[in-house]
Amino acid sequence: MQRRSFLKKAGLGAVAGTGVIAAPVIAQENPAVKWRMASSFPRSLVALFGSADRFTKYVKEASNGNLQIDLFPAGEIVPALQVLDAVSNGTVQAGHTCGYYYLGKNPSFCFDTAVPFGLNARQLNAWMLEGNGKKLMRDLFGKVNIVNFPLGNTGTQMGGWFRKEIKSLEDLKGLKMRTAGLAGEVLAKLGVVPQQIAGGDIYPSLEKGTLDAVEFVGPLDDEKLGFNKVAKYYYYPGFWEGGAQVSAYFNKDAFEKLPKHYQAILESTVIRAHTEMMAMYDSMNPGALRRLIANGAVLKEFPKEMMDASFTATAEIYKKYSDKDETFKTILTDYMAYRDDLIPWFNVVEGSYTRYVAHAISQARK
Amino acid sequence: MQRRSFLKKAGLGAVAGTGVIAAPVIAQENPAVKWRMASSFPRSLVALFGSADRFTKYVKEASNGNLQIDLFPAGEIVPALQVLDAVSNGTVQAGHTCGYYYLGKNPSFCFDTAVPFGLNARQLNAWMLEGNGKKLMRDLFGKVNIVNFPLGNTGTQMGGWFRKEIKSLEDLKGLKMRTAGLAGEVLAKLGVVPQQIAGGDIYPSLEKGTLDAVEFVGPLDDEKLGFNKVAKYYYYPGFWEGGAQVSAYFNKDAFEKLPKHYQAILESTVIRAHTEMMAMYDSMNPGALRRLIANGAVLKEFPKEMMDASFTATAEIYKKYSDKDETFKTILTDYMAYRDDLIPWFNVVEGSYTRYVAHAISQARK
Repeated sequence: MQRRSFLKKAGLGAVAGTGVIAAPVIAQENPAVKWRMASSFPRSLVALFGSADRFTKYVKEASNGNLQIDLFPAGEIVPALQVLDAVSNGTVQAGHTCGYYYLGKNPSFCFDTAVPFGLNARQLNAWMLEGNGKKLMRDLFGKVNIVNFPLGNTGTQMGGWFRKEIKSLEDLKGLKMRTAGLAGEVLAKLGVVPQQIAGGDIYPSLEKGTLDAVEFVGPLDDEKLGFNKVAKYYYYPGFWEGGAQVSAYFNKDAFEKLPKHYQAILESTVIRAHTEMMAMYDSMNPGALRRLIANGAVLKEFPKEMMDASFTATAEIYKKYSDKDETFKTILTDYMAYRDDLIPWFNVVEGSYTRYVAHAISQARK
Repeated sequence: MQRRSFLKKAGLGAVAGTGVIAAPVIAQENPAVKWRMASSFPRSLVALFGSADRFTKYVKEASNGNLQIDLFPAGEIVPALQVLDAVSNGTVQAGHTCGYYYLGKNPSFCFDTAVPFGLNARQLNAWMLEGNGKKLMRDLFGKVNIVNFPLGNTGTQMGGWFRKEIKSLEDLKGLKMRTAGLAGEVLAKLGVVPQQIAGGDIYPSLEKGTLDAVEFVGPLDDEKLGFNKVAKYYYYPGFWEGGAQVSAYFNKDAFEKLPKHYQAILESTVIRAHTEMMAMYDSMNPGALRRLIANGAVLKEFPKEMMDASFTATAEIYKKYSDKDETFKTILTDYMAYRDDLIPWFNVVEGSYTRYVAHAISQARK
């Protein structure tokens, strides 16, 4: 039966009757398309770079090799922090990067990655896939000729590596620290001197002594980049990145030119790779943290005084941007209403469960 | 350039030279295939049923309409709790159901859904997609001629609806309660009389008074099924389902007969729909809970005494199955080592973050 319906579908009768005329109609179903994708990350980062690599593989497999995307690590064809521009102007058809790297162009891009005291990974999925996040972000990136998708999340990040212990707010004054997104502005209000540096370029600055502290992601990437070799105190939580999303940006013209089923293939494969990045972090972070601690890292929680001061500073920054930018205000209002709804629910059900099991595991170990 | 490579790829030169001989080669790339998928859930459950509906839509779109899966709600072509059998023996090519419904056939099937005090949704993703879970589950389901994929998760579930308040372990004795999976055996050790009933059939039993308590999922589904109309106390957390996964089961012969790129399309679209189910729950649960509370539901946390007794009972049950079933023991050992690694990490970083933000939100509301 399948054989017969296939014959019917392919219109072979017509081919037999009219020679080759029908053939192009059949074949055009799957034109060969080649894209280039620029990553903001070095090849050594197995989750950050690796998930984009998987994405291109899944696209190739699902399209039977007809849609091919060549992936390039940071700096190879596009500098790490210029990926958005390159996609926007069509230098490349696709990019894998973080919206908040481009805060200088538009502060609302931060909502596509993470904002201080914002949603965690699963909550951001809910806002992006089922809430108003998708429409709000599509409208935003549409203005720079980009169609955006989530392609990964790191989970709640660590607060980073500090050469000296943070005992009070005083200890933050004048601290030169690598960070990204709105975190820099929040920490600046506490006296930190923030610097945005691409992942692959942080270690040399730290080694040269031009940085006092660095936050990048968490155990998996931080171990790979060697930060523990130059700073000992490893703080949590990275309250500016409760769940940092990484994004796939597609040039809008290139995307819209694709056959609908190629677009559909991209939409599904990108969410698969997105989900897998989080699974890679969750799978590899505990082991990396154990090794870091065995090698001398000292795990510390940020003082509550610092969390409270940062929460207040964040509110001021949100107000500043909202006052001067209507789009920022619209997105912030929607995002924060969602957060205020979702986080208490998480804290009750997911939270009470995780706390109990963590407690029971530690009791059982005694 | 794309046009030229497409011509080359499609082998049009050969077609022109040799008549229709090459045409079947082109067209067979995308044979028309029709599958049937039986769901264990009624159509009214927008996330549980709806995510499988989305999956079939994504498959159709990505395959340009060539791979079509017709989805049937519980009972329409296969009874709700017989989906695994129907897929296994090829009555249908695909099913959307929960492994733990089939505990009677093989207790290890529970690991494909949830086990008491097990992994949460994100942790289960990590184990299933990046840990040993995929291989262990593939081997297990391969024995019943099934290829398994995750197609959704509910997150940590509620502990369910109780007609009477649970003040001590005494209050559990003789309680007739609907539940599923190993939860029934755990609660039986505490004196509960467990019953497994498909989602769509619970309400009538509750109304007739043949049940004293019911747990199904959480606010979204429980509101839809009307449990709050017949029981007032709404308990959390559902410690037997820290993150209940729903599964897509494909008949192995049918799956392996598909062209590789159709298999690849299924693999990516299923993970997209999987991720979206969780996002649907997270997006809709808080509102559903608010409405339930407004209509008289009383939210309660299970007494610690009950959690502790259940944790002990669970360990006994795991030992019982491990002693008589080598496969169960192998999977349990891997799963629990993963849990003991991952949950403390979650509790520290994700946990400290969520607790702080929940606290800050409640302070800001005062």
